[in-house]
Amino acid sequence: MRFKEYGKGRRFLGRLDYESDIIEEIEGFATSMDITTAYVQVIGALKKVKIGYYDQDERVYKELNFDRHLEIIQCAGNLTLKDNKPKAHLHITLGDEEGNTFSGHLMEGSVVFAGEAYFDELRGEPLHRGYDETTGLPLWENI
Amino acid sequence: MRFKEYGKGRRFLGRLDYESDIIEEIEGFATSMDITTAYVQVIGALKKVKIGYYDQDERVYKELNFDRHLEIIQCAGNLTLKDNKPKAHLHITLGDEEGNTFSGHLMEGSVVFAGEAYFDELRGEPLHRGYDETTGLPLWENI
Amino acid sequence: MRFKEYGKGRRFLGRLDYESDIIEEIEGFATSMDITTAYVQVIGALKKVKIGYYDQDERVYKELNFDRHLEIIQCAGNLTLKDNKPKAHLHITLGDEEGNTFSGHLMEGSVVFAGEAYFDELRGEPLHRGYDETTGLPLWENI
Repeated sequence: MRFKEYGKGRRFLGRLDYESDIIEEIEGFATSMDITTAYVQVIGALKKVKIGYYDQDERVYKELNFDRHLEIIQCAGNLTLKDNKPKAHLHITLGDEEGNTFSGHLMEGSVVFAGEAYFDELRGEPLHRGYDETTGLPLWENI
Repeated sequence: MRFKEYGKGRRFLGRLDYESDIIEEIEGFATSMDITTAYVQVIGALKKVKIGYYDQDERVYKELNFDRHLEIIQCAGNLTLKDNKPKAHLHITLGDEEGNTFSGHLMEGSVVFAGEAYFDELRGEPLHRGYDETTGLPLWENI
Repeated sequence: MRFKEYGKGRRFLGRLDYESDIIEEIEGFATSMDITTAYVQVIGALKKVKIGYYDQDERVYKELNFDRHLEIIQCAGNLTLKDNKPKAHLHITLGDEEGNTFSGHLMEGSVVFAGEAYFDELRGEPLHRGYDETTGLPLWENI
């Protein structure tokens, strides 16, 4: 495993705006607060959802749209940099009225009903995402 | 996004009591240790489960009961204050013997088989939950 | 709830090696960095998966193998000691190309396609796992 060590940064609790796009909320906050690296976690509920599944053979994200209300059971991942801007990489678990569960890679287009976010900033050299030939994904390249 | 910044607090690993109520364990610990704000995460297993799904139109929690043994795959969220007492807001993912997955808003009535908890205290002005007109939920109001 | 308090330790972001075993990556990193106690979280994707479900009556882990590509939606838990070596206890949520979700106790035999890990070290007296008579599980005994 390749790694970087980080020091303690700021920590925040946030209340996501009603009907905002969850990724825009997270990345917009990071930009406004100059957060380049963080652990992020969100719980709450969405009015509609767009998630993706990465096809490891075809090397494309398959999009999945849920035009329905779902609980955000868990939305967690990291904030690092891509093209020198904060980029959230978040995977999300969703629950419906029967407890059935759906999940995937969170994409823009997911609309917030309510959301409570936790940011744990990591202080140190930022990680930058770039094209990884082995997987076709934008992975951390300066690690 | 509305937010508050917090400083570093205490951190704990905890072993939940056999046959305890998971929410009572978490909130009771917070009360006994004077924790007003924290990030909380639990893994383990439950003997039975009560979860909820919030109906965004009807504005009520629909209860779901699982009278069976399920793994706690992930139970995470926050501890803040409601009526000046520690209130855990936790969403939970559960797995069965075939790997099938259920999830929802954790409610009182979920009985612990085994549980390992992580508490990351946030030091600063406590957040208080109060009625939010837009969603009908007890969201953070002093933010 | 029985508990231990911990101080702040090191923090790391890590990129898991392609085609590595996820548990060997996590525990190998902990060994190489002398990490005895940590909160660990991973997102990414697996090429194949081995998870378990603990049968609370039979007191055995039932193994479940998925010989297919799945997203790591959330893999989280702790690193403590067993037989004086770092032992990862991680529960994992997995998503497929339709957003269907599977989950369980992560076992050796799960092969990484891509993985991004977060380690939050806890400084203090290490917890040791030993046989717990009530559950049949290797729980923390010095707590």
